[in-house]
Amino acid sequence: MAVVNQNVKRADQDVIHRLAAAGVATVHEAQGRTGCLASYMRPIYSGAQVAGSAVTISAPPGDNWMVHVAIEQLQEGDILVLAPTSPCDNGYFGDLLATSAMALGCRGLVIDAGVRDVRDLTAMGFPVWSKAISAQGTVKETLGSVNVPMVCAGAAIEAGDVMVADDDGVVVVKRSHAAKVADAADARLAAEEARRERLRKGELGLDIYAMRERLAEKGLTYV
Amino acid sequence: MAVVNQNVKRADQDVIHRLAAAGVATVHEAQGRTGCLASYMRPIYSGAQVAGSAVTISAPPGDNWMVHVAIEQLQEGDILVLAPTSPCDNGYFGDLLATSAMALGCRGLVIDAGVRDVRDLTAMGFPVWSKAISAQGTVKETLGSVNVPMVCAGAAIEAGDVMVADDDGVVVVKRSHAAKVADAADARLAAEEARRERLRKGELGLDIYAMRERLAEKGLTYV
Amino acid sequence: MAVVNQNVKRADQDVIHRLAAAGVATVHEAQGRTGCLASYMRPIYSGAQVAGSAVTISAPPGDNWMVHVAIEQLQEGDILVLAPTSPCDNGYFGDLLATSAMALGCRGLVIDAGVRDVRDLTAMGFPVWSKAISAQGTVKETLGSVNVPMVCAGAAIEAGDVMVADDDGVVVVKRSHAAKVADAADARLAAEEARRERLRKGELGLDIYAMRERLAEKGLTYV
Amino acid sequence: MAVVNQNVKRADQDVIHRLAAAGVATVHEAQGRTGCLASYMRPIYSGAQVAGSAVTISAPPGDNWMVHVAIEQLQEGDILVLAPTSPCDNGYFGDLLATSAMALGCRGLVIDAGVRDVRDLTAMGFPVWSKAISAQGTVKETLGSVNVPMVCAGAAIEAGDVMVADDDGVVVVKRSHAAKVADAADARLAAEEARRERLRKGELGLDIYAMRERLAEKGLTYV
Amino acid sequence: MAVVNQNVKRADQDVIHRLAAAGVATVHEAQGRTGCLASYMRPIYSGAQVAGSAVTISAPPGDNWMVHVAIEQLQEGDILVLAPTSPCDNGYFGDLLATSAMALGCRGLVIDAGVRDVRDLTAMGFPVWSKAISAQGTVKETLGSVNVPMVCAGAAIEAGDVMVADDDGVVVVKRSHAAKVADAADARLAAEEARRERLRKGELGLDIYAMRERLAEKGLTYV
Amino acid sequence: MAVVNQNVKRADQDVIHRLAAAGVATVHEAQGRTGCLASYMRPIYSGAQVAGSAVTISAPPGDNWMVHVAIEQLQEGDILVLAPTSPCDNGYFGDLLATSAMALGCRGLVIDAGVRDVRDLTAMGFPVWSKAISAQGTVKETLGSVNVPMVCAGAAIEAGDVMVADDDGVVVVKRSHAAKVADAADARLAAEEARRERLRKGELGLDIYAMRERLAEKGLTYV
Repeated sequence: MAVVNQNVKRADQDVIHRLAAAGVATVHEAQGRTGCLASYMRPIYSGAQVAGSAVTISAPPGDNWMVHVAIEQLQEGDILVLAPTSPCDNGYFGDLLATSAMALGCRGLVIDAGVRDVRDLTAMGFPVWSKAISAQGTVKETLGSVNVPMVCAGAAIEAGDVMVADDDGVVVVKRSHAAKVADAADARLAAEEARRERLRKGELGLDIYAMRERLAEKGLTYV
Repeated sequence: MAVVNQNVKRADQDVIHRLAAAGVATVHEAQGRTGCLASYMRPIYSGAQVAGSAVTISAPPGDNWMVHVAIEQLQEGDILVLAPTSPCDNGYFGDLLATSAMALGCRGLVIDAGVRDVRDLTAMGFPVWSKAISAQGTVKETLGSVNVPMVCAGAAIEAGDVMVADDDGVVVVKRSHAAKVADAADARLAAEEARRERLRKGELGLDIYAMRERLAEKGLTYV
Repeated sequence: MAVVNQNVKRADQDVIHRLAAAGVATVHEAQGRTGCLASYMRPIYSGAQVAGSAVTISAPPGDNWMVHVAIEQLQEGDILVLAPTSPCDNGYFGDLLATSAMALGCRGLVIDAGVRDVRDLTAMGFPVWSKAISAQGTVKETLGSVNVPMVCAGAAIEAGDVMVADDDGVVVVKRSHAAKVADAADARLAAEEARRERLRKGELGLDIYAMRERLAEKGLTYV
Repeated sequence: MAVVNQNVKRADQDVIHRLAAAGVATVHEAQGRTGCLASYMRPIYSGAQVAGSAVTISAPPGDNWMVHVAIEQLQEGDILVLAPTSPCDNGYFGDLLATSAMALGCRGLVIDAGVRDVRDLTAMGFPVWSKAISAQGTVKETLGSVNVPMVCAGAAIEAGDVMVADDDGVVVVKRSHAAKVADAADARLAAEEARRERLRKGELGLDIYAMRERLAEKGLTYV
Repeated sequence: MAVVNQNVKRADQDVIHRLAAAGVATVHEAQGRTGCLASYMRPIYSGAQVAGSAVTISAPPGDNWMVHVAIEQLQEGDILVLAPTSPCDNGYFGDLLATSAMALGCRGLVIDAGVRDVRDLTAMGFPVWSKAISAQGTVKETLGSVNVPMVCAGAAIEAGDVMVADDDGVVVVKRSHAAKVADAADARLAAEEARRERLRKGELGLDIYAMRERLAEKGLTYV
Repeated sequence: MAVVNQNVKRADQDVIHRLAAAGVATVHEAQGRTGCLASYMRPIYSGAQVAGSAVTISAPPGDNWMVHVAIEQLQEGDILVLAPTSPCDNGYFGDLLATSAMALGCRGLVIDAGVRDVRDLTAMGFPVWSKAISAQGTVKETLGSVNVPMVCAGAAIEAGDVMVADDDGVVVVKRSHAAKVADAADARLAAEEARRERLRKGELGLDIYAMRERLAEKGLTYV
C-alpha cells in the first residue's frame, strides 16, 4: 500500500509558466470550469502566483513522515501537494521543511491540512495554500504514499499534474491537457482585454454580451 | 417572479458619508445593536471603509447573470449586494464586472457567496466583503431579481438601504432611519472620545461607568 | 459562582520573554506537543509575537461585563483570555477596552469569541487572537468570573499560566512548567539552527534524521 | 426597542391546514421556490408535519426571558418562532415551556438555536425544529421583542406568517399569500399524482417532461 | 508523557445513579449551568440515559491504541471518555471494542471523534455520544495517555469525574461535587413537578415566576 | 464537456452482494483503509445496508436536470451517485425521482448535496445517503455529465465502481478490485468472529493482540 512512485512525467516548463501567468480563475475557465480546489484553501500571504508539477503526498492524520520522503522526489519547479487520509488540521510543514524543499527547487506547497512557522515562510518567500494555520505538531510513525493519485480539497490530482495557485486559490490541470489549456487561457486573456476597455468606458455587459433579448425571452420583467 | 425594480429611493449622500465615517461598530450600536451581517462576511483587503445605497441582487446558486442586469441599475454611490437563493461559494464577481461597476460609480460589493480576481480588485481599490474567495465560475442561465427585498448573510435588506462596511464587517441601515442613525452615531463618537482619554490615563471602566455597586448587588464576590 | 480571584501568581518575566522569543510552534513542541489552542484562533494582524500571564475571563454569551472587572486585575505584562460559557461570536472587545487595558500594561487579548474595531486595534499595536471579527455588541447584565480555571478554544487555562501567541496561533504553558519549557525551547532552537544550515545546502531530512532504515522496515516500497 | 406586538393577524385556519397537508417541499415550490429556512433546521423527531401562525421571538444570545412573554401571546394553532440576535446554540426551551405552550394551543417551535429535554418533548408530541440540541441553560436578564419582523435561519419572517414544517425542514409563507399558495400547492399535488403513476410503470422523466430535444440543443452528447 | 494512571477514585454508585436519573439538563442546572460538553456530541441512538465514572483517554488523531489500554482500567459502572489531541473524525471504536468494554462493566462511550459499527452498537445496547459516525479506521502506532486530565468537546474532565449523558447530550460533574450536585438535582426535580402541573392548567410562567414587574422596569413595551 | 457515457462495465452481482453483506467498515478495512466518503454523508433512515454499481452524475449547483438523464442509464442493481460541481445543499432528489429510479431497479442514492421528501422515501424503502436534507428545489437549465469520473464527498468515483453504504456511511470499491476486496472482507469477518467471542468472555485486547511488549518498548508508563 505504501509506495513511492519515482517515475513521474512533468509538463513542459514553458506551458507551466504560461499557466502561472494566466492565474487560477482564467485557467479554470479555460478548461471548462473544472479543477478548482475547495475555497477553504487559502494562501498564507497575498501576492504569490505560481505553477508547478505536483509531487503528491497521501499522509495519515497527524503524521508528516511522508513529507520527508516526498522531498527527495522533488525536481526543480515542482510543488508539493499533501492530502491527509482523513480530515486533519495539524501543522505538517514548517520552516525547516521549507528550507529543504526550496533547496531542491520546490515552488510551494498545497496542503489540505495545516502549516506552521508562517511568519518564517512568508519571509522566505515560500508560498503555501492550506486549510489551516496550526502550530500543532505531527509524528513520524505511519507510512503513506508519494506520487499516487489522490483527492486533495475536493479535486482529483495525479503526480505530474500542473498546480496553479494565486490569491484566488488553487486549480489543478491534468498534465495531458496542460498545453491545450495554456492556449485556451492565453486566448481568453486576449479577449478579456478588449472587453475590459469597453467596460471601463461605461459600456454595459448587457450590450457587449447581447443579453437583453435572451433575458426578455426568459421572462425578466422591469418595473 | 423575476423582476427588476427601477424605482429605488436612496438616502441622502451627506447622511451616507456620515455613516461611512462612523464605521460599522458605531453605526450598529447607534441603531440599537441591530443590522450586522454575519461575521463570516470579510473584506478581501484591509482598510476600506465605505457606505452606499444597496442595489440588491437575488441570484440562483452558481449563476451570475443578474449581476449584469444589476449593474445597469447602479447610480453614483451605490453598493451592489448579492445573496444567492441557497448557500453557494462560487466566484460570482471578478475584475471585469468590477471595472464595469466602477465606471458607473459603484463603491463596492457585499456578497454572501464568493468573489475572484481578488488581487486585481485590490489593485483597483474596489472593496468587497464576501463569504468566500473562489475562482469557481458561474453560468448565465437562470433569472433572479434586482432591487427586491432579500436576506443577505442573516440581515434583511431592501434596495436603497444604506450599507456600511469596514474591517469589522458590514451593517445595514434602513433608508428611513438613516438620518436618525447618523445623528446617534455622531453623538456616540463624541461621547466615546471623552471616555477614551480617561481610560488612556488609567482610569477604570468600573469607575467611569459606575459599575461597582450593581456588580455587588448581583453577587460578584472578590476572593 | 461569580468570583474574582485577586491572588494570582505569575511566572517570572524573564521566562515569559524567552517563551515569547521562541514562538508558539517551538514552545508547543518543547512541552511535548501540548497546549495549542484551536487553529481557528487567528491574529487580527500579522507579525505580533507576545507572551504574558493569563488573566482569565469566563463570560456569558453576548455579555462583556466581566471584561471591565478583569481589567482592574491586570498587571504589567498580562494577557486577557476570554472564553464564553457557550459558543458566541459577538464582538466583546474594542478600542476603548484596549485603551484601558494598554494603560495597565496588558500585552494583548486571546478570545474564543469576536473582537471589533480591528483597524483601531491594529493602529494601536494591541494584538488580538480571536475566533471571529464582529461588530455585534454585547450587554452588561449577567455575571461571570475572573481568574478561574476555564477551557478556551479547547485548552484548559488557569490564571497565571503563560500565553504565547504569534502568527501560528496560541499556546498555553502551565505556570509551574514555564521555566522548564523555556529551557527546552531554547535547546530546541539551538538544535534546529544546525539542521537548517544542512537542509539549506541540499542535504535530505531522510539522511539527517536517519530515516531510511526504519521506512524500509515498515515496508515503504519505491517503484 | 423591546416591544410586544399584541395585534397580529393570522391566516385562515383552513388555509393553514391545507398548507400543512401539502408539506414543506410542495409549498416551497408552489410559491416559486422561496421561503425555505436553512437546511440545518432539523426536527427533534421524525414524522411531525404541522403548520401554524408565527409568534415571533427576537431574543439575545443565551437569554430565554422573551419566551415566557411570547407564550402569553399564543393563540390556538400558533407556532413559536425564535431567532437569537446573534448565533447561539443554547437550549432556550424545554419540557416546562412546552407544557405551557401546549396548554395554550401551540403546535410547535421553530428555533434557530438549541432545545433541550428532547426525550420529554418527543413523548409529549411537541414538535421542534432547531439548529441544535443542547442542555446548556439560559438566563432571564435582557429584553428582546415579540411579534416583530425578524430573520430566522436565513428567512425573513413576520408575526402571523404561516410556518410549515415536516421532516424536510421548514418553510415560511407570507400571510397575505397563504391562500394563493395553498391553491397552487393543491394543484401541484394533483399534477404530481398522475406523473408518479407513469414513473412507477417505468416511463422516463425524459419523455414525460419532453426533455430530449432541449438537452440536444444545449449540446448533451451520448458516447 | 505517556502514562496510565491506575489509581482513580470513583464517586459513590448511589450518587451516580441519582445523577443518571436526573438527566443532563437538570444536572447541568443543578451545578450552576456548567459542565456541558459541546452540542455537537450526539447519541448514536435515542433513549439511552446513563451516568458513570470517567476513564479518560487522550489519543493521537487517527490512532486508537490507547483504547485497548484503557479497557483494562475499566471497573463496573465506568464510562470511556476519549479526546483526540487534535480534531479528528475517525472511527476509533466499533463493535469489537464495545464487546470487550461491556464484558468489563462499561456503561458507554463519550468520544470527541468518530465511532463505527453503529448498527451493531445499537443492537447491543451500548450507548455512544460522539462528534461523528465514521467507518474510517485507525492505526496503533503512537502512544497517548489514560486517566489523565484532558479537555473533551470543550469541557475539562478528570478520571473519576461523573459523566451523565442522555438525548440532550453530555455533562460532566466533578467527583468531589457529585453528591452535592445530586442533592441539588433532586431538589430541582421536585420543584419542577409542581410548576409543571400549574403550567399544564394554563397558568403563565409570567405569573408563576412573577416576571411582569421586572419586565416593565427594564422597559418592555406592549403595543 | 457535457457527456453521457453509455458503456459502463459493472462488477459481478455476486461480488456486490458479498460487499453489501460485509458492510462499510469491514470493506474499507479490507481494502487498506481507503475509499470512505466524508463522514458528513448520513443515511436518511437507519438500517439500510446496500451495495450497487455507481451511475455517476456531475451536476451544477442547484440544477437536477442530469438526474433525469442518469435515470435512463440505470440497470438493475445500480446506485445513483451525484456530486455537485461546487458545494450545494439543495434538494436535488425527491419521491418522484425515487419512484422512477426504483422502477428501473435502482438500489439507492448517494448525494453530496441535499435530498427531500424524506418521509416518502423512507416509506418507499428507498435509501439515501446525503450531505443535507433540504426542501429547496432546483432548476433544469444547465448541462452536466453522466458516468464520468468525479469526486464525491472527498472520494474519487468512476461509473461502475461499487458503492457500499450502511449506517456507518459510504465506501467506494474500484470495480477492478471488487472481487479481491470481497474475499478480503469475508476473511476479515471470519477472523473477527473468533475474537469477538474471546472479548465477550472478558479476555483483553492487550493480550489477544499481544500489545503489551510493544507498548512498553514505546515507553508507556503505568503509575
